[in-house]
Amino acid sequence: MSDFQELIQFIRTEVNRDLKRFPLPESPAYLYNPIRYTFGGTGKRFRPILVHLSGRAFHVDPDSLMKIALATELLHNFTLVHDDIMDNDDRRHGQEAIHKKWDESTAILTGDGLFAIAQILLNNLPDRANSICCFFNEATLEVCEGQALDKEFENDITISVEQYLGMIEKKTGSLLGACAALPAILIGAEKDTIEAMDQFGRNLGQGFQIHDDLLEIYGNTEDMGKSLGSDISTGKQTLMVIMARENNSSEWSEILNRDGVKNRSLDAVRNYFTKSGIEKDARKMAKDYFDTARSNLEKIEKIDRSELISFIELVEQRST
Amino acid sequence: MSDFQELIQFIRTEVNRDLKRFPLPESPAYLYNPIRYTFGGTGKRFRPILVHLSGRAFHVDPDSLMKIALATELLHNFTLVHDDIMDNDDRRHGQEAIHKKWDESTAILTGDGLFAIAQILLNNLPDRANSICCFFNEATLEVCEGQALDKEFENDITISVEQYLGMIEKKTGSLLGACAALPAILIGAEKDTIEAMDQFGRNLGQGFQIHDDLLEIYGNTEDMGKSLGSDISTGKQTLMVIMARENNSSEWSEILNRDGVKNRSLDAVRNYFTKSGIEKDARKMAKDYFDTARSNLEKIEKIDRSELISFIELVEQRST
Repeated sequence: MSDFQELIQFIRTEVNRDLKRFPLPESPAYLYNPIRYTFGGTGKRFRPILVHLSGRAFHVDPDSLMKIALATELLHNFTLVHDDIMDNDDRRHGQEAIHKKWDESTAILTGDGLFAIAQILLNNLPDRANSICCFFNEATLEVCEGQALDKEFENDITISVEQYLGMIEKKTGSLLGACAALPAILIGAEKDTIEAMDQFGRNLGQGFQIHDDLLEIYGNTEDMGKSLGSDISTGKQTLMVIMARENNSSEWSEILNRDGVKNRSLDAVRNYFTKSGIEKDARKMAKDYFDTARSNLEKIEKIDRSELISFIELVEQRST
Repeated sequence: MSDFQELIQFIRTEVNRDLKRFPLPESPAYLYNPIRYTFGGTGKRFRPILVHLSGRAFHVDPDSLMKIALATELLHNFTLVHDDIMDNDDRRHGQEAIHKKWDESTAILTGDGLFAIAQILLNNLPDRANSICCFFNEATLEVCEGQALDKEFENDITISVEQYLGMIEKKTGSLLGACAALPAILIGAEKDTIEAMDQFGRNLGQGFQIHDDLLEIYGNTEDMGKSLGSDISTGKQTLMVIMARENNSSEWSEILNRDGVKNRSLDAVRNYFTKSGIEKDARKMAKDYFDTARSNLEKIEKIDRSELISFIELVEQRST
């Protein structure tokens, strides 16, 4: 394992430890048992890791960083718990989704509680809590907007690639932008620096999401949390689906309908994306976002950007 | 109309006007249309009114108060939108509930968006934003705990009066406590003053909730937003139901079962509560809370408490 991989593993272990020992009351069990259950999931903890790495680039004290890191992970989990109800996803991070293990009411309230706890964590920061909360909540509202667009796009066959990219910037990019920018806000960095860190996180997030779409089609089912191709079968307009429709609408319809909507073959979809050049275009698009993320970092003077560059590579090369 | 009633109506009109002209983007319509719809409901606006009256007692500038007032109303609406899904309530404030007019996914996201906007409003206060957010979010988590207890109590026939009172303190009292305390925090009042205002709001809230339980049984259906007795028929453990069970469990079971669970007669329930003295005890309990709210105010020196005393009377005497 490289030194960088060891660092990532170290941060992940620390985040998981802090989540497990997070001080939560026992009662009401209706609220706190599912929150504890969420904390025990096997998420990759990308967001808190990004907070820590961004903070290290600015030489920020790790104790203050951890509160921000945990708040971003709680916020992320809040959105996942609610999204899983909306998207009817039954599994999350290697375990049953809350709305499946308990019920919808429990899952709604669990998400609300996670959101409130994330706020309390940030409200209690010793310095610049208010600027941090402002940025964090603007990003949160953007995540809600992104989820709203994602719902609007379902089964809408007029969505363009550009609209899709705007949606993933809000749904995934805005929170990763906040993860990168918040440590800079914490130390009182200049506006340009905060803006460049935000843009770095947003581009990383968009690359991450397109890479995720690719993994859903070309990844290994056992490694991915949900079944391959499940987005396609529920009518989600993912990047490659939109490209296929725009590329040759009738050919794409034929592939989708050949085996019936429920049993359509993932192999046929995979082969079509590859031979039509859509896979290649999507990979190029993801790479462009990762390259832009690297350029964003280069704009910032006097920071140690090596770990953040390694993090981009790690995200770019992930297979699960 | 008395001067005080005119003042209340003036504040309500101002709050409604600010909600109607609240700057919300057009897109995504999936998120912002139902939020706009919520703003147009006919809620009584008790919470923002309490913020304004508490602020007036401390001679606080009304412009700063309005942001806090709107944030409390948004937070309240966020919890109602989510509670209506959980409790399967189809109507709210004279119009269809969001999950009914749209669907559950829309309602979940609408609540989340309202919560985020409430945070942004408070984050942008010019003074003491952080202390205000701390108090506000602690109260929000308590509201979540209160809703969790309410869900735990459904169909649980071991719940005591004391447990019920603890639940309504969290579910209703904590936010009214925040409405009363936040203006004091805004002007940098002493800890004792903030605490007394919080206690005043909590007691007012508990009185309000018991009064609400009474209105559900003895009120006029047309005036109340939902059908009379609906809580009883869904197995909610309201104060009088718990008292009836504790008073004479077998007699109460007989009344509940006489006409079948779905068609039980509200008249029989009403008569039983009256003749057994439960109605009287519940009215006495509500009055005690309102009296304690008055005592809480008397502890605070150098404020003009007359409007807050009138507000207690208004809540105490409401018939809808």
